[in-house]
Amino acid sequence: MEKVKVGILGGSGYGGSELLRILLFHPRVEVCLVTANEHAGKRVDHVHPNLRRLTDLVFAETVVSDELKALDCLFLALPHGESLKLVRQLPERVTVIDLAGDFRLNDGDVFEEYYGRPHTALELQRQFVYGLPEINRQRIASARLIANPGCFATAVILGLAPLIESGVTQGRIIVDAKTGSSGSGAKPAANTHHPKRANSFFAYKAFAHQHLPEVVQTLRAVNPEWQEGLVLQTHSAPMVRGIFASTYCMLRRPMTSEQIGDLFKRYYHDCFFVRLVGESPDVNWVKNTNFADIGWAVSGMDLVVFVAIDNLVKGAAGQAVQNMNLMFGFEEQTGLVFPGGHP
Amino acid sequence: MEKVKVGILGGSGYGGSELLRILLFHPRVEVCLVTANEHAGKRVDHVHPNLRRLTDLVFAETVVSDELKALDCLFLALPHGESLKLVRQLPERVTVIDLAGDFRLNDGDVFEEYYGRPHTALELQRQFVYGLPEINRQRIASARLIANPGCFATAVILGLAPLIESGVTQGRIIVDAKTGSSGSGAKPAANTHHPKRANSFFAYKAFAHQHLPEVVQTLRAVNPEWQEGLVLQTHSAPMVRGIFASTYCMLRRPMTSEQIGDLFKRYYHDCFFVRLVGESPDVNWVKNTNFADIGWAVSGMDLVVFVAIDNLVKGAAGQAVQNMNLMFGFEEQTGLVFPGGHP
Amino acid sequence: MEKVKVGILGGSGYGGSELLRILLFHPRVEVCLVTANEHAGKRVDHVHPNLRRLTDLVFAETVVSDELKALDCLFLALPHGESLKLVRQLPERVTVIDLAGDFRLNDGDVFEEYYGRPHTALELQRQFVYGLPEINRQRIASARLIANPGCFATAVILGLAPLIESGVTQGRIIVDAKTGSSGSGAKPAANTHHPKRANSFFAYKAFAHQHLPEVVQTLRAVNPEWQEGLVLQTHSAPMVRGIFASTYCMLRRPMTSEQIGDLFKRYYHDCFFVRLVGESPDVNWVKNTNFADIGWAVSGMDLVVFVAIDNLVKGAAGQAVQNMNLMFGFEEQTGLVFPGGHP
Amino acid sequence: MEKVKVGILGGSGYGGSELLRILLFHPRVEVCLVTANEHAGKRVDHVHPNLRRLTDLVFAETVVSDELKALDCLFLALPHGESLKLVRQLPERVTVIDLAGDFRLNDGDVFEEYYGRPHTALELQRQFVYGLPEINRQRIASARLIANPGCFATAVILGLAPLIESGVTQGRIIVDAKTGSSGSGAKPAANTHHPKRANSFFAYKAFAHQHLPEVVQTLRAVNPEWQEGLVLQTHSAPMVRGIFASTYCMLRRPMTSEQIGDLFKRYYHDCFFVRLVGESPDVNWVKNTNFADIGWAVSGMDLVVFVAIDNLVKGAAGQAVQNMNLMFGFEEQTGLVFPGGHP
Repeated sequence: MEKVKVGILGGSGYGGSELLRILLFHPRVEVCLVTANEHAGKRVDHVHPNLRRLTDLVFAETVVSDELKALDCLFLALPHGESLKLVRQLPERVTVIDLAGDFRLNDGDVFEEYYGRPHTALELQRQFVYGLPEINRQRIASARLIANPGCFATAVILGLAPLIESGVTQGRIIVDAKTGSSGSGAKPAANTHHPKRANSFFAYKAFAHQHLPEVVQTLRAVNPEWQEGLVLQTHSAPMVRGIFASTYCMLRRPMTSEQIGDLFKRYYHDCFFVRLVGESPDVNWVKNTNFADIGWAVSGMDLVVFVAIDNLVKGAAGQAVQNMNLMFGFEEQTGLVFPGGHP
Repeated sequence: MEKVKVGILGGSGYGGSELLRILLFHPRVEVCLVTANEHAGKRVDHVHPNLRRLTDLVFAETVVSDELKALDCLFLALPHGESLKLVRQLPERVTVIDLAGDFRLNDGDVFEEYYGRPHTALELQRQFVYGLPEINRQRIASARLIANPGCFATAVILGLAPLIESGVTQGRIIVDAKTGSSGSGAKPAANTHHPKRANSFFAYKAFAHQHLPEVVQTLRAVNPEWQEGLVLQTHSAPMVRGIFASTYCMLRRPMTSEQIGDLFKRYYHDCFFVRLVGESPDVNWVKNTNFADIGWAVSGMDLVVFVAIDNLVKGAAGQAVQNMNLMFGFEEQTGLVFPGGHP
Repeated sequence: MEKVKVGILGGSGYGGSELLRILLFHPRVEVCLVTANEHAGKRVDHVHPNLRRLTDLVFAETVVSDELKALDCLFLALPHGESLKLVRQLPERVTVIDLAGDFRLNDGDVFEEYYGRPHTALELQRQFVYGLPEINRQRIASARLIANPGCFATAVILGLAPLIESGVTQGRIIVDAKTGSSGSGAKPAANTHHPKRANSFFAYKAFAHQHLPEVVQTLRAVNPEWQEGLVLQTHSAPMVRGIFASTYCMLRRPMTSEQIGDLFKRYYHDCFFVRLVGESPDVNWVKNTNFADIGWAVSGMDLVVFVAIDNLVKGAAGQAVQNMNLMFGFEEQTGLVFPGGHP
Repeated sequence: MEKVKVGILGGSGYGGSELLRILLFHPRVEVCLVTANEHAGKRVDHVHPNLRRLTDLVFAETVVSDELKALDCLFLALPHGESLKLVRQLPERVTVIDLAGDFRLNDGDVFEEYYGRPHTALELQRQFVYGLPEINRQRIASARLIANPGCFATAVILGLAPLIESGVTQGRIIVDAKTGSSGSGAKPAANTHHPKRANSFFAYKAFAHQHLPEVVQTLRAVNPEWQEGLVLQTHSAPMVRGIFASTYCMLRRPMTSEQIGDLFKRYYHDCFFVRLVGESPDVNWVKNTNFADIGWAVSGMDLVVFVAIDNLVKGAAGQAVQNMNLMFGFEEQTGLVFPGGHP
């Protein structure tokens, strides 16, 4: 059985770390290249000691070289803005999965508003498919370029797509989302300084989170008639991994919890990684896994939907591998079926 | 300077623990009695080792005895339902501050719906004043019986009162509230088992939290014209102390952040314990203190208000002492001015 | 490829939970039976929601029935003392791996001293092999009954065996060991109540931990000439998973760090799950894995050895499966090669 | 009642933060000056939001100006090495309490070995008194210059002084010490990055911690006949505040727990801030306080002593204020009697 030759550009951050954790054990993959400029020449397991004994890979520099031509699939886990510079130079034969936000948004103006820089490769952006398999499975399977969704966006869209598709909501939707500290990346910073972050809780980026427009864009693709607004408020929780999104909708007419459940079951009937839970999910149950756990409660016309994912797995690296599986014709869950711990 | 003689019925839980932490150092108070049936006869600092060297008090049994007649003020920190049985037997001369939910609700049907038992002393309930000083300062000062607010209710009401009073909102309001594990009390339970609670995040009591009706009742007293609904969703966060409430409102017309700030400044201009912060508050900054930190952000007609309090202080014991200060004519902040730690 | 039919008696605790997490994905195993008296008839994934979508197993009652005869291997993850009552009744053809302390100690008096009850099956105990593969690999491979080591004992023995074998230490050895809260089990208790355990640190069971005698017994088997004492002091750390043991030895003569390293390398040269690290290990790097990371530092004749393991994996369920692999002739690491997360 | 005019040089770190938290509420103190070069001109409560509403102070620059002459007492909470440069220029009339390590060690060679730079003011060092009140109360009371002890050193010395003084131990002593992340300061760094530090445990600075020599120097002053070695191993625990030190001694002859207790009681009979606890202390009980809780256990000739302190209070700022109290003739506990929280 021939293996897919993959490379990871930007393998020293948490996205890269998770890609390695998954891809090194993927039965259909050979990891041929991992780059990290600041660690070039260093063993990968010196930077990711969890991988000691499990790999002899050495970090290369992040350059576009002939070496890339030998690859089948390239994961870009670079800082926002780097893919934009790089993608045009990549060999045509290589499929690309970009974990950054550079190619998620169709609208250049919206991109500039939320990312603070003009988009310099919009014509290329047209070729990218938004890589949320539960929404876009068919298009992903035949794509060469994938824009892997943002972590918050993954949670929010999964919680709303069945409702938006069936048009059962009215008015603007409120999403109150909470994330663990790993979402801020591997570089120490004030808001992830342990003395500050442990035991704390605070909100950030009010009305300005860059994942909002990809949520709206995707939900409008699910149902073009949905034109209502959506408020996405992000919060920092004192945990390392996990996103928990609470989504508040007004229904058009009273529904029972079972009716809501039917919408979700129908929409996700063939989705291995979506688990519908009868009560609230808990980030602990999805931690370190590619599952998205969804629960809900209803009272008259008020509906609240709860979604829990691991921001680094279903919200980043795991979803990227799920996309790769689809693109290369593997079973969607290949290499991704591992349970979280309890506790 | 004569001191107020106080007693605490139910001094072994976290509410009682915090009352002791504050009252033992209050310059106008002498703690004469602390009860805890399961610890009767035991030194208080055996149950609360943080108080070693700081008190020689010994737990008494929780009984209505003649001893109570010598007291000026009685704090009830008993399980829900116990005050209901007890209050009628208390000596008339003693002021009472009840930290439980037994006497907060005016409507017996609503009480029964949310607390699962009929209210058996509604005529007495009429004499209780809802002890949220920032809302009810005058009435508290002349009351003999105080129903100390719930922790969530305190945070939610403080974040909404200025908006409701001025009538600037329209439609139903969404409150997404998060609490630390100390809110569940001192008794070990499944949801506060450390292996489960650490690193976790989950929702609970959807559309059913018992603090909802006291929020609605109080806001309608602030502005009887406000008849819109309010959704209160509570969540368990992996921290010990603190409540963080994110409140989402639709404004009647677009307002600036400064205009919102003016409403809050006017409403709270003489409120020592309310601090208006330019950005999101953080539970870390209010932990162990009686402060309520309030921040907000606005975008067109969408407003989000953030409130952080310590659930055991401003959300329980600190507020109870603030009420006592008002009732006995002391300065409101007496014995309550201590900063939180940093970190 | 025929699969080994395994059963788990006592599948609702954390040991059972980890066994399921590993065995359900073990390529050579079929899990045929899981018991838990308090959950009999309930789906396994209702008790372990991390396993939703991954198993349809239902808990059976913990009884010795004919059903057991169809099994090849039985894991006992019962409370201490239960195996003692049960083992004699188990079918002879079934191999047994007991995760409790019931059959670890050869000396009935020592057992009684540390476990507070007389040993009622000492003749059976003689047939048990102490299941620490890095020390006892050969004997395990041909055993039918395995006493799986305690979590602290695993860490302490792995850190000391190479030193004791080569006789380089003198005098009594001090072990300062720290554990996460999951070591106390799945049942809520005072010392694992989140408000108490989070942010805390304390010692417990001074000079009395029941893992001490199995450490001494095993090290004396490694080198019968070693007759010095060993102090094992256990501490509770505010984390969920992980044991970190710091072991202080006086050397007979000054040695370099390299010389110490050579001892460890030689002793563990064929041990996949022991990783020698140049600096201190970190429980984060071994969390959720079967690895034992060992580091050390030396200054003249003073040596300190640091060992980090996951108490539930290498300290319990993972090691049990490692034993099963040896007993059934599989590669030692089969089903156990998964990396920890980073972060 | 005239107040002592104090200044804090270096008020933006955690040491400075704690000094402010205490001194702003000290009944005999007026805080006249706080400096922080990077925040000069900024309000203090912008950097320490826990102090909002509690101070209007503004950070000044850290320069030796005439302004200092108006002060009575100066706290230096500067990075290591800065006091060394500064102290000679300070006005003679001002008492100085230095929280850094610059003036703790009498021996220039030892200083250079542990701090990596030559000591350039040894003649001045002779005038500094080591500010551990429980050991040096008399000398502190008449000193003008105080070297405030290190946080680990405080815990270790308090646990050993009664034993060393009475000469009951033999052989080298092992100290296994654990600290919270606040001990690493307010500046974000790799080892205090929340995703790494939460849930982790690791050792650092084996045989090389700079607090070791001040422990040895102080214990030898307590009993010049004590010439045995001491191993101090420091560890990072996943908590914010607190040091927990476990100290292992061999006694010269068997002693009972009561006999050990008598030694401690006698030595600390007039020490308000030392609390002897019958079982292990817990950092939770001393968090945010100036207390040092000490427990112990004995088995034959093996003794283990446990000490818990808050590294930022008794281990830094609280102890500094305790020293100030002694120097200015106040009661030792003035402004320092606040209980920790429970929980």
